[in-house]
Amino acid sequence: MSLLVTGSIGIDTVETPYGVSENCLGGSAVYFSMAASFFSPVRLVGVIGSDCPFNLTEVFAGRDIDLTGLETRALSKTFRWKGLYHGTMNEAITDKVELNVLSEAPPTVPESFRNSRFVFLANTAPDLQHKLLDQIEPGAFVAADTMNCWIHGHLDELKSLLKRIDCLIINKDEARELAADRNLISAAEKVLTMGPGTVIIKKGQSGSITVDSGGERFILPAFPTLEVKDPTGAGDSFAGALMGYLAQAGRTDFGALKTAVAYGTVAASFTISEFSLEGLTSIDRANIDNRFEMLRKLTQF
Amino acid sequence: MSLLVTGSIGIDTVETPYGVSENCLGGSAVYFSMAASFFSPVRLVGVIGSDCPFNLTEVFAGRDIDLTGLETRALSKTFRWKGLYHGTMNEAITDKVELNVLSEAPPTVPESFRNSRFVFLANTAPDLQHKLLDQIEPGAFVAADTMNCWIHGHLDELKSLLKRIDCLIINKDEARELAADRNLISAAEKVLTMGPGTVIIKKGQSGSITVDSGGERFILPAFPTLEVKDPTGAGDSFAGALMGYLAQAGRTDFGALKTAVAYGTVAASFTISEFSLEGLTSIDRANIDNRFEMLRKLTQF
Repeated sequence: MSLLVTGSIGIDTVETPYGVSENCLGGSAVYFSMAASFFSPVRLVGVIGSDCPFNLTEVFAGRDIDLTGLETRALSKTFRWKGLYHGTMNEAITDKVELNVLSEAPPTVPESFRNSRFVFLANTAPDLQHKLLDQIEPGAFVAADTMNCWIHGHLDELKSLLKRIDCLIINKDEARELAADRNLISAAEKVLTMGPGTVIIKKGQSGSITVDSGGERFILPAFPTLEVKDPTGAGDSFAGALMGYLAQAGRTDFGALKTAVAYGTVAASFTISEFSLEGLTSIDRANIDNRFEMLRKLTQF
Repeated sequence: MSLLVTGSIGIDTVETPYGVSENCLGGSAVYFSMAASFFSPVRLVGVIGSDCPFNLTEVFAGRDIDLTGLETRALSKTFRWKGLYHGTMNEAITDKVELNVLSEAPPTVPESFRNSRFVFLANTAPDLQHKLLDQIEPGAFVAADTMNCWIHGHLDELKSLLKRIDCLIINKDEARELAADRNLISAAEKVLTMGPGTVIIKKGQSGSITVDSGGERFILPAFPTLEVKDPTGAGDSFAGALMGYLAQAGRTDFGALKTAVAYGTVAASFTISEFSLEGLTSIDRANIDNRFEMLRKLTQF
């Protein structure tokens, strides 16, 4: 089924103990689309400036990623992010951020994309997420991400967004802030009462927790990787494979969600093993399925 | 099959955000024995002073825990520990410790215990662990715990101990120190090369990693508990149920180890839900088996 993502397309500079990657392609919509495309066609909605050095048509060559929703604004500059990771690399330290085109009006969802049945709203201001969602026909399965600055500064808009979406995918610190609860299980249950039928909490190296309003729960460790070179994009790759699998399966029952979370976990493990998109561009669906089976074997008893 | 534990019996004072528990019964051998007794008879080897206010025969009433190896030294004082837990309670802060009788000669393993087939050497100085192990007939499945101070100060004795044991059960920071490797998977593999056929790394709220020298791996999340009141004894309860299950099953193949780790995870989740031993004394084997099945359901996909 049709899968739409709206999110950032960025020029990233990332420094980790393994090295520096300067001015490489990044952004939530890019990682998401790359990971999702192993499972399902993807419709990308995003905006870049005229300075963007990347040709996304070439970047995504051979993948079923529809760029009809990619807007290039001649007078704007592309989003830029510079981040550092230290030690166990559990958290990015933002060294520099230039929102540029992301601080302008959101992109338009093309007419041909409005009937999408699966939608992912990557992290951005909640009022922009509302405006993007307004352009989608009702009835889609909508998942969204958010971050601490919106929880602090735009809680009302965020809370009204939560009533409109089916699934919130956030990291553990965001869940704790949003629910005002340090225990992740009770935090997840509190977020459920705010609207979404499913809440997925990403715990980085410690895996994820998925809860739904029917009382189901699923706890999955991260896939163990010997080498983590660059965690950038792990969360968006996770969401991409997760939503890609759901769109492929055309189901959102809890059994499908568990499989989707496992695929998300696997995609994230490939992303972090190399800088930028290299971890995803160097593999195929068979690699993903192999690691999915390994993850099953590692966790079943 | 016969299961022997040697470890501490202590008078604990514990302060957590949920309250204070003063001068309560604690110690590695006590938590271990209590958890193991749900699965298998236990032989306890430990030593207390004449000031010990607890009657262990009464404490363990109704459980198959043989106290032939409990030594009371008239002129000595019992081990005391005062610990604090803050925030997410991932780590105990030792406020005060009086080794007392633990700084003396180790207890003697009674003649009738020497044929034990499963042995757990709780955390203590590696040379004491050697002396205790010297008293056991060869051929037992031996698991041990250790801690950072022995890794720093007594590495040679610890390394020679590792060559004599089958399974090391340690927490993640200890594993990283021992292997000089921040990645837990490669740290575990490095510890395998030091001797034990199995290494189990406890990650607190993030579960555990089990690896063996045959290349098998098992990753299990912690059981999600809504309320953590007192983490004291979690690791020893984990080891107790784990070794208790192995002794009950009379097997140590990787399949049995996975089940054992899951039972250990469940026992630890009961321990931390109440102060001191209350979490274990208020349940029976059926509660453990129910939660074991819940853990399976939570983690399978």
